[in-house]
Amino acid sequence: MKIYTTAGEAAKVFCDLKTNGQITDEDTVTLLYDLNIIQERMASLKNTFPADTLHTAAIKANPLVSVLKMVNGWGVGLEAASRGELALAEAAGANRGQIVFDSPAKTQEEILYALKRSIYLNTDSYNEIERVEEFSAYNQITSGVGVRVNPQVGAGTISSTSVAAQVSKFGVPLDESDRLKEYYLKNSFLTGIHLHIGSQGCPLGLLVKGVKKVAAFAEEVNAESESLYGEQRIKTFDLGGGLPVGYYHEKSPVTINDYAELLKKEVPVLFSGKYRLITEFGRYIYANAGTVLSRIEYVKKFKDANIIMNHAGADLFLRKSYNPGDWHHEISLMNKNGSVKAGDFKEPYLIAGPLCFAGDIIERNAILPEAEAGDYLIIHDTGAYNLSAWSRYNSRQIPVVFGYNPLTGSIEVLKRRETLQEIVNFWS
Amino acid sequence: MKIYTTAGEAAKVFCDLKTNGQITDEDTVTLLYDLNIIQERMASLKNTFPADTLHTAAIKANPLVSVLKMVNGWGVGLEAASRGELALAEAAGANRGQIVFDSPAKTQEEILYALKRSIYLNTDSYNEIERVEEFSAYNQITSGVGVRVNPQVGAGTISSTSVAAQVSKFGVPLDESDRLKEYYLKNSFLTGIHLHIGSQGCPLGLLVKGVKKVAAFAEEVNAESESLYGEQRIKTFDLGGGLPVGYYHEKSPVTINDYAELLKKEVPVLFSGKYRLITEFGRYIYANAGTVLSRIEYVKKFKDANIIMNHAGADLFLRKSYNPGDWHHEISLMNKNGSVKAGDFKEPYLIAGPLCFAGDIIERNAILPEAEAGDYLIIHDTGAYNLSAWSRYNSRQIPVVFGYNPLTGSIEVLKRRETLQEIVNFWS
Repeated sequence: MKIYTTAGEAAKVFCDLKTNGQITDEDTVTLLYDLNIIQERMASLKNTFPADTLHTAAIKANPLVSVLKMVNGWGVGLEAASRGELALAEAAGANRGQIVFDSPAKTQEEILYALKRSIYLNTDSYNEIERVEEFSAYNQITSGVGVRVNPQVGAGTISSTSVAAQVSKFGVPLDESDRLKEYYLKNSFLTGIHLHIGSQGCPLGLLVKGVKKVAAFAEEVNAESESLYGEQRIKTFDLGGGLPVGYYHEKSPVTINDYAELLKKEVPVLFSGKYRLITEFGRYIYANAGTVLSRIEYVKKFKDANIIMNHAGADLFLRKSYNPGDWHHEISLMNKNGSVKAGDFKEPYLIAGPLCFAGDIIERNAILPEAEAGDYLIIHDTGAYNLSAWSRYNSRQIPVVFGYNPLTGSIEVLKRRETLQEIVNFWS
Repeated sequence: MKIYTTAGEAAKVFCDLKTNGQITDEDTVTLLYDLNIIQERMASLKNTFPADTLHTAAIKANPLVSVLKMVNGWGVGLEAASRGELALAEAAGANRGQIVFDSPAKTQEEILYALKRSIYLNTDSYNEIERVEEFSAYNQITSGVGVRVNPQVGAGTISSTSVAAQVSKFGVPLDESDRLKEYYLKNSFLTGIHLHIGSQGCPLGLLVKGVKKVAAFAEEVNAESESLYGEQRIKTFDLGGGLPVGYYHEKSPVTINDYAELLKKEVPVLFSGKYRLITEFGRYIYANAGTVLSRIEYVKKFKDANIIMNHAGADLFLRKSYNPGDWHHEISLMNKNGSVKAGDFKEPYLIAGPLCFAGDIIERNAILPEAEAGDYLIIHDTGAYNLSAWSRYNSRQIPVVFGYNPLTGSIEVLKRRETLQEIVNFWS
């Protein structure tokens, strides 16, 4: 299974697009997706987990409707974390049984919308459970309803994406398990349980520790419901996502197999057939499939710095620019004819974006070959949480996105470059 | 002149909108602009600087086309820092003579676009000057062309918005003034000079120190051009913006008058009639005019924390969420009937947004009255760099924006709430 896209491969696709006239000089930034990597990742999920697992792709990692359609067409469901993402899941043609609706701030209307359509729902708080309870008094609940719990196993290395610390805005903390158990036992519609430890920065051991703690709680609830009502209350176990993804090309990342093996060893009950599993991977499915090519417009050589001015900034690399210590992307360099450059320039480069604020920097000490205006930066592993977090600051055009399949040689537009008129409409 | 919008005033406008049916329960977030504050700020600029000054409002601070039209209609120009912002300026009906085009990564096409339309252009590097030089070999340059210089007077307290440190991605550092002087002397089209020290976090003394250093350099260039060609080369002095704005209501902010007085004292040549001035304020014009009202959907009370789940998160408060130490907003609380609440709850609140990542927090230790679901947060001074930096993460609907005039009682929609279909179109 392919882990990373090489600079040479991305350069070749880019040159083909240029030759065919599918990109022009106005495409200062181009985003490529290796569709085969996405497909392989989804196949790996299916091969690793029990056959009846509902795998859903996190829309927040990549909300392109064309990609959602593909993913759903390949038999993977969609995880929606807002009303807007629900609309995207529906626009992609997902069946109701293939959608999971998560959000820590669901409104009354959003809850009713999902329940009336039998969309699987993870509640995030006691108050939200109570809203479902009210609905259930007069209506049949035909969808699965879960509760997101916080196993409080500690944070990973990236605080902004770690959600299982002692205090978290998400879910019901497990140290209140007695109260939560009461909610489960009195509400027969509560048939699911959900956790999510974090996205990137959480080692496998931490992920599995969280799952184990939640599974023990589910078993406890089920033991009581068996004894009280003669039936298993919690039937669905939503594992969330959170598998760390490789961004450093010299390292081998952990694999989905490593994760599943550890889970099977530590939490065998999840693989016993007693629970239907749900997964919500996002970064794992998309990150390594994406590559950004961005033109260098100027190279500023000053006494104190060598500054590359490129066209991808804090709009596309929001997290990297605002929290530079937390994130990494490998960066290669290609000349305007599509040849990947080699060697190291004598001094590091500061790689700045095109936006009008000082923090618009995507790398402070980049070791690169010697760069000149007209070259392209090849920024690797940009398939998740880059375009999806796009910031409108400075109102730049959203770049064109292509999907390609290196096995068949096919290539297609996943999203065309935004027009200036669309920007005007956006702010009108 | 009004400095801040009170909670009571915002609450009243909100209640009127609710009574009139102009907002519904689906409007979980509403943005209000006091148009009178915007107008007063612009009037203050006109009253403070020489009459022939071209004042431009920074589009990046607030790109709403309806607001740009108003501002331009009131005789203020527009500063565009990208090709998209140029399109917004044109859509707002700005005359070419009222537009200033800044960007550190202008493409060849963008430069030609501006030069051919006589749009004032600030170049950002030697290479960009050379591009204009090439154009000038075969074309008449009819617009003003400036150079952005970095006076290297040091950074303010907020590194992401401080652009005059020793190393900056912006402009030509003044410690290379000999080389820059040559460019000025050989290129008769270079008739302007531009600096911008930072946005927020830079004290007046630092701003004026930067202006003084650049003015001294301009005088030096002009002395040589007078002696060589008998004419003043640099005629336009673009001061940028950067006036610190008040976000703490117990403090009196510095005023535009304080700034102008200090400038007059320290850099009198700028007020002698020798230079035409340009300004590019943004935060000063808009920040204090904006107020966000956001519904509290849940209040989670746990052993270790009291968490408010509200609908405004890192999409609208991008900088505050990602760099919490740098930014501040006063926050008030209103009940669902529009009464501003008083008193302090016994424990601080963690105010979380609705987005699916742990960093989506807009305040960690908010001292507020006791909050309950259905209340509204009133978040003050949100008129600049909030909506304009909107992050698409989680694809939530962009809230409705109203403009009101407290003097006349008028109220109007500046931008309606984004529809779900528009979100689907955005990602298609």
